[in-house]
Amino acid sequence: MQEADNKQTPKKAKATLETMRKVFTLPESDQSTLARMDREISENLLGFLGGRIVAGDIAPANLEQDFLDTAIPEDPMFVSEQVDFLLQKVVAQSVHTAAPSFIGHMTSAIPYFMMPLAKIMMALNQNLVKIETSKAFTPLERQVIGMLHRLIYNRSTDFYDTWTQSLTHSLGVFCSGGTIANITSLWVARNALLAGKEGAGTNISDAGLFKAFKASGYSDLAIVVSERGHYSLKKAANVLGIGRDNLITVPVDSHHKMNLSALENTLKRLKEKNVGVIALVGVAGTTETGNVDPLAEMGKLAGELKIHFHVDAAWGGPVLFSERYRSLLKGIELADSVTIDAHKQLYVPMGAGMAIFKDESALTHIEHHANYIIRYGSRDIGKHTLEGSRPGMAMLVHSGLRIIGRKGYELLIDLGIGKAGQFAKMIQAAPDFELISEPELNILTYRWVPETIRKQLAGAKKEQADVINVILNELTEQIQKMQRAKGQSFVSRTRFACHHQHHALLNVFRVVLANPLTTRQILGEILEEQREYGKICLETDGLGARLAAACKLT
Amino acid sequence: MQEADNKQTPKKAKATLETMRKVFTLPESDQSTLARMDREISENLLGFLGGRIVAGDIAPANLEQDFLDTAIPEDPMFVSEQVDFLLQKVVAQSVHTAAPSFIGHMTSAIPYFMMPLAKIMMALNQNLVKIETSKAFTPLERQVIGMLHRLIYNRSTDFYDTWTQSLTHSLGVFCSGGTIANITSLWVARNALLAGKEGAGTNISDAGLFKAFKASGYSDLAIVVSERGHYSLKKAANVLGIGRDNLITVPVDSHHKMNLSALENTLKRLKEKNVGVIALVGVAGTTETGNVDPLAEMGKLAGELKIHFHVDAAWGGPVLFSERYRSLLKGIELADSVTIDAHKQLYVPMGAGMAIFKDESALTHIEHHANYIIRYGSRDIGKHTLEGSRPGMAMLVHSGLRIIGRKGYELLIDLGIGKAGQFAKMIQAAPDFELISEPELNILTYRWVPETIRKQLAGAKKEQADVINVILNELTEQIQKMQRAKGQSFVSRTRFACHHQHHALLNVFRVVLANPLTTRQILGEILEEQREYGKICLETDGLGARLAAACKLT
Repeated sequence: MQEADNKQTPKKAKATLETMRKVFTLPESDQSTLARMDREISENLLGFLGGRIVAGDIAPANLEQDFLDTAIPEDPMFVSEQVDFLLQKVVAQSVHTAAPSFIGHMTSAIPYFMMPLAKIMMALNQNLVKIETSKAFTPLERQVIGMLHRLIYNRSTDFYDTWTQSLTHSLGVFCSGGTIANITSLWVARNALLAGKEGAGTNISDAGLFKAFKASGYSDLAIVVSERGHYSLKKAANVLGIGRDNLITVPVDSHHKMNLSALENTLKRLKEKNVGVIALVGVAGTTETGNVDPLAEMGKLAGELKIHFHVDAAWGGPVLFSERYRSLLKGIELADSVTIDAHKQLYVPMGAGMAIFKDESALTHIEHHANYIIRYGSRDIGKHTLEGSRPGMAMLVHSGLRIIGRKGYELLIDLGIGKAGQFAKMIQAAPDFELISEPELNILTYRWVPETIRKQLAGAKKEQADVINVILNELTEQIQKMQRAKGQSFVSRTRFACHHQHHALLNVFRVVLANPLTTRQILGEILEEQREYGKICLETDGLGARLAAACKLT
Repeated sequence: MQEADNKQTPKKAKATLETMRKVFTLPESDQSTLARMDREISENLLGFLGGRIVAGDIAPANLEQDFLDTAIPEDPMFVSEQVDFLLQKVVAQSVHTAAPSFIGHMTSAIPYFMMPLAKIMMALNQNLVKIETSKAFTPLERQVIGMLHRLIYNRSTDFYDTWTQSLTHSLGVFCSGGTIANITSLWVARNALLAGKEGAGTNISDAGLFKAFKASGYSDLAIVVSERGHYSLKKAANVLGIGRDNLITVPVDSHHKMNLSALENTLKRLKEKNVGVIALVGVAGTTETGNVDPLAEMGKLAGELKIHFHVDAAWGGPVLFSERYRSLLKGIELADSVTIDAHKQLYVPMGAGMAIFKDESALTHIEHHANYIIRYGSRDIGKHTLEGSRPGMAMLVHSGLRIIGRKGYELLIDLGIGKAGQFAKMIQAAPDFELISEPELNILTYRWVPETIRKQLAGAKKEQADVINVILNELTEQIQKMQRAKGQSFVSRTRFACHHQHHALLNVFRVVLANPLTTRQILGEILEEQREYGKICLETDGLGARLAAACKLT
């Protein structure tokens, strides 16, 4: 609702047809709070974020107090009133994901030019499901998919000339994020495996899983991935009807990579049991430790056994931009499908994922049609997507790829990996920090362990070490929560079995170094802060005393 | 990349670490094209769209010419260069979905305040999968879900106090759109039906569909919907492993609503055959004709048979805002789950859907956890969503609900339905237009039939009518394509069996009246335009002569 011109006497907002039409046509005064915010973001994005977001301790239960009312207001509200509310209660209490000290998750800063471009995209309000509501956005999205395909597979010019803008085939699909990309990839793989004989009425798309499975003659189905696979694969196994129990996890080696001999044994065992393997999934940048599976060997194995090879490169895909580190992903070109998230290391705002398929025909396994759109022979992209209506996020990816360019992304990737190496050295140099996973890309894990405890732990046998580690897990969790609550910096936390600690399940700090503005000094301050909180935590709940007691065990 | 200050000598963009850091910190000059576009949208949204989008005829193949190159540029590009490209090749060649004469699809104009708010949302770049990357956005999204739940179910204050901000339960989920909402709802329904006995190892989430199905003792599975159900249900049946053949479509009556006696017969037959019905789906606003199924009767039937009742109200849900028309959705409160799209009649930009669940425990059937986020007992919304990382679109829905308010949305809904009634009368008053489906909400279908042919058709027997209708189908398709190509206005096209034309499959124009700026005059012009194109088409390919010949058949 527009506010009365005279700000001194704001009248109550009223719902009239005239005012409703006006919200579609007339902007607020350029002196309004909303207009000022709009300019502030354009003129000084980091200033806006730093100035408007209030860092600090607020309990979630308190946070909720402003969002309890479920009654939809009867009467309209002035835009200014809602903007004031948002600034005070939402913007102020959001997470400064662009802060250089926010190094705990995969959501990072984004280039300033993305914001005005996003506004243009929103204003155009295209719907990519069909060309009738997207026009040039359709070939643009196809081009972006083609660009990523070429980055991964580098097929012939002829291949791209033929398929990038094809009416009937697609080299991949855009979607809201990596989870949908993984589900789409495994959906294609499942349907390909259970396509049945033509005309036999056992095609899974039409007949359903139970009939197609019965006709296939398999004793069971499986998806194979390392124990560091992303949790979205469990969701995929569930939604696709495979079952989470049939997501077979293979142990990792001490570098958090798929153990190849364990994989070979697993695949052999599955074959002996006549289990149909829907896909072997390799990870290029595990969420927890940032490691890359031995893709070349896995791809070779999958090829020999004719198993769909999917690579979840949601995080690590853009490493392909780097001449220096590209070889870490060697073998990704053997993948039948690859997941890449643009809202991760392509630095696009939230909500842009892609599933890229090596074979231009792969997506026919999940093709759909309707009477009013995505008709046979139409240019509508929607015939190959899991989602229906979708925004024009491809425009932002397109802009990133062109404005930043291959060399620009390379610099960002190299910077992150280099910084992770530096941070690992800083941790290793500190007597009271323990590096848990060395960074292969730009992710690492570690924990704070008081120096005396570290010495004790180094010489401890499994039984004693286990007791100490359980208490250290509590300590790590407390430090991480305290740091998060203080809001000056943020490091995340995960939990996995650690080879060099007798395979104990450890809570660890997890760091993702994707923000180019994170400096060595900030990293030092984060360690200092954790050390300080660690000491406080030791004094709480008798944690320190319990640790000391555990160290005296023999 | 930032451009050199001196515009007269634009140097080649270079990828240096310094410039890469700058794109995260420094905006372009406020005189840059991007900054000007940004302001233009703020100051005059419709002017921006009307001025920048070039209406008119361009063949898709020509459109593609600018999007063929799949090589990712090595070097960065100046932002201004990319913006110029976007303005000329993408913005200019996009669809003016906000134009009052664009009445063919469900993508419409959006209120001006959504654009700056969307920019704020993008700048904050929150990730709603977990509270660590969304903070206040998490309770805000839960509140919005609670608001929509209350709009549909209107449970007790105590109910909402208990569950809206619950740590363990959710009243619904946000997602990218109606397709994901429908899939999520049917996923929950499938898993509930095949949950198996506790501890029996046949829970579908873990054991998979084939084992759970076997243990269930059912002979088959089915999802039941009318023949006007949205095509996303076919996708859902496919991805969930039910199979498209098991999406049982029930005929509609002459008003395009589920035929209740046919439904009863279908459900009886399925029961006799021991088929497990995953869900009965009612539609509140079919995509093609905008009709509402007899929800109250369907809900009663589903309740008696203990079948999950899902209502796809992606389009029609907001009719609940209208005191006058709310009763059309009577029975929606019996639904176990409801799909609503905010990017449709809540007038939010593309990419905002919701699945609302009556029972606060329903989503536990698809709950997931991981070690680093969505842990047990966490506030992370991601444990109940099909998607993983998600943007803060809820902020825009929240703003719409408060700024427009219940009464504002009511006005918009009433306006659209009223206008559809008026347009139907205009069509009925014209001797050369035939109304095919009367509007119940704000959607209707019709076609152009030359007056003489109409008279002939009225008295024709089925055999002759079928011949005439086949030629008229061709005519309708050609008129619609010509109108789309001209770009002054847009009406969509679909195809369904028409009761009053001997159940012949007819191509029809489809109109969606959701834009409050569409006037009676514009509607008149659209008819006039179609009439003119119709006459041209009659002269092409001998269409007119073939029609005349068909009329002489006996």
